Amino acid sequence: MKLSELGEFGLLAELERRGLARGIEHDAAELGDGLVVTQDALVEGVHFRLDRMSWRDLGFRAAAVNLSDLAASGALPEGLIVTLGLPAETEVEDVLELYEGIAETAVPVVGGDTTAAPQVVVSVTALGRSERVPGRAGARPGDRLVVTGPLGAAGAAFREARYVRPPIRLDEGRLLAREAHAMLDVSDGLGQDAGHLAARSGCRVVIELERVPRAPGATVEDLGFGEDYELLAAVADPAGFVEVGRCEEGSGVDLLLDGRPVALTGYRHFG
Amino acid sequence: MKLSELGEFGLLAELERRGLARGIEHDAAELGDGLVVTQDALVEGVHFRLDRMSWRDLGFRAAAVNLSDLAASGALPEGLIVTLGLPAETEVEDVLELYEGIAETAVPVVGGDTTAAPQVVVSVTALGRSERVPGRAGARPGDRLVVTGPLGAAGAAFREARYVRPPIRLDEGRLLAREAHAMLDVSDGLGQDAGHLAARSGCRVVIELERVPRAPGATVEDLGFGEDYELLAAVADPAGFVEVGRCEEGSGVDLLLDGRPVALTGYRHFG
Repeated sequence: MKLSELGEFGLLAELERRGLARGIEHDAAELGDGLVVTQDALVEGVHFRLDRMSWRDLGFRAAAVNLSDLAASGALPEGLIVTLGLPAETEVEDVLELYEGIAETAVPVVGGDTTAAPQVVVSVTALGRSERVPGRAGARPGDRLVVTGPLGAAGAAFREARYVRPPIRLDEGRLLAREAHAMLDVSDGLGQDAGHLAARSGCRVVIELERVPRAPGATVEDLGFGEDYELLAAVADPAGFVEVGRCEEGSGVDLLLDGRPVALTGYRHFG
Repeated sequence: MKLSELGEFGLLAELERRGLARGIEHDAAELGDGLVVTQDALVEGVHFRLDRMSWRDLGFRAAAVNLSDLAASGALPEGLIVTLGLPAETEVEDVLELYEGIAETAVPVVGGDTTAAPQVVVSVTALGRSERVPGRAGARPGDRLVVTGPLGAAGAAFREARYVRPPIRLDEGRLLAREAHAMLDVSDGLGQDAGHLAARSGCRVVIELERVPRAPGATVEDLGFGEDYELLAAVADPAGFVEVGRCEEGSGVDLLLDGRPVALTGYRHFG
């Protein structure tokens, strides 16, 4: 069977079943003493195009998507490890710009590696410490769902061939992590990420799309695009965050727009 | 300027000078509490060819080269984070074989990510704890240089279009780390890696090549090939390890064969 037929989540399930890996679908790995580690790679032509994004934006983004996973774990970042794959004809100034973009996150680069590659690959590991990692499995019926900011910015930008930088919700993540029953970042699209939360927690998730704050220019469809990197948390008390839905008994996800069910297409890995 | 002109080590020096990154040339990053982290990526067509290596060997290697960096830091591994870039047409069985190869190292996979990519990319982060990281800067005149096993196996295999698995010297690394003044793994070739040690420690390194244990079929030239992943340590007392040279006042590296200087070509990043 081809990977494109099984899909990313099918592969991960098979790896867990065989005892070959665990925790791959989580935002971050936990290693005791509150240590939280996340790794994400950006591949040119798959995750980014350098004619739509500057080298500086690329550096910022490679760090930010990892820091977003730390945010979803309620962690305070301690350092980044940056592995770059670069074609030999890459301009040195471009590589320095990439590192300047990473430096804009204010999290220090403490190690890494550079290597030759046929196209640009940026693999970042982010390390942090968390006093409490909510995880994805603790949401329960009666919980209210909140988000940390507007969604749809990435989808709107993609339609207009623009690029927007992702937010990094570290402060919000640490605040929410104290009490949240479950939390993740919205990277695959609101429908899919709500689905991860519902499946892992064993509850039904209802989202009222008209309550979801939308970025300027974003349509309802853009909410399913993903890459927004706002946090979605299941909490007993919204505590000032924007409430967009709730958890109920059951399973699956209901996306409602003014009470009517709608479907949102999310990002398909290997699709 | 192109990256191919500046070279990897020139880039790293420029990054350190600008305060954009530190520790990139080290085997592993240290993050307090004895936590040691290393990240290395293997890119198809650059670091491996799947017509010369099985998927299982690839998995083992991706883990092993990182565990070798932990070994050079005297660390006990705690877990691996595996990010895979894979073409959509990849066979699921091949991916499972890759993970079986990782599992042969007996270090658990605790997280990671999979993503689409135009060719196979395996990026691994290894985490461990060390009571004492020797680093590369502490060698001093009078130190004796030891290796943990034979060199040249990778070079000999490359000449014969074979593949050999790297060793993982975790036990030896932890033993040597207790007392070693400096330690690294021989990944760039004996001449280059000895050069790193000499440059960072501010001493002159003399290697007597006839004392270096050679793998079956390996020539003297193969000692410069790299990818052997044995440890090279500067110690006051060889304590049973094979002595291959010494540190003296001065700078640079002398590679001597029966007393006559020889040159060994090492691996050139972006060359």
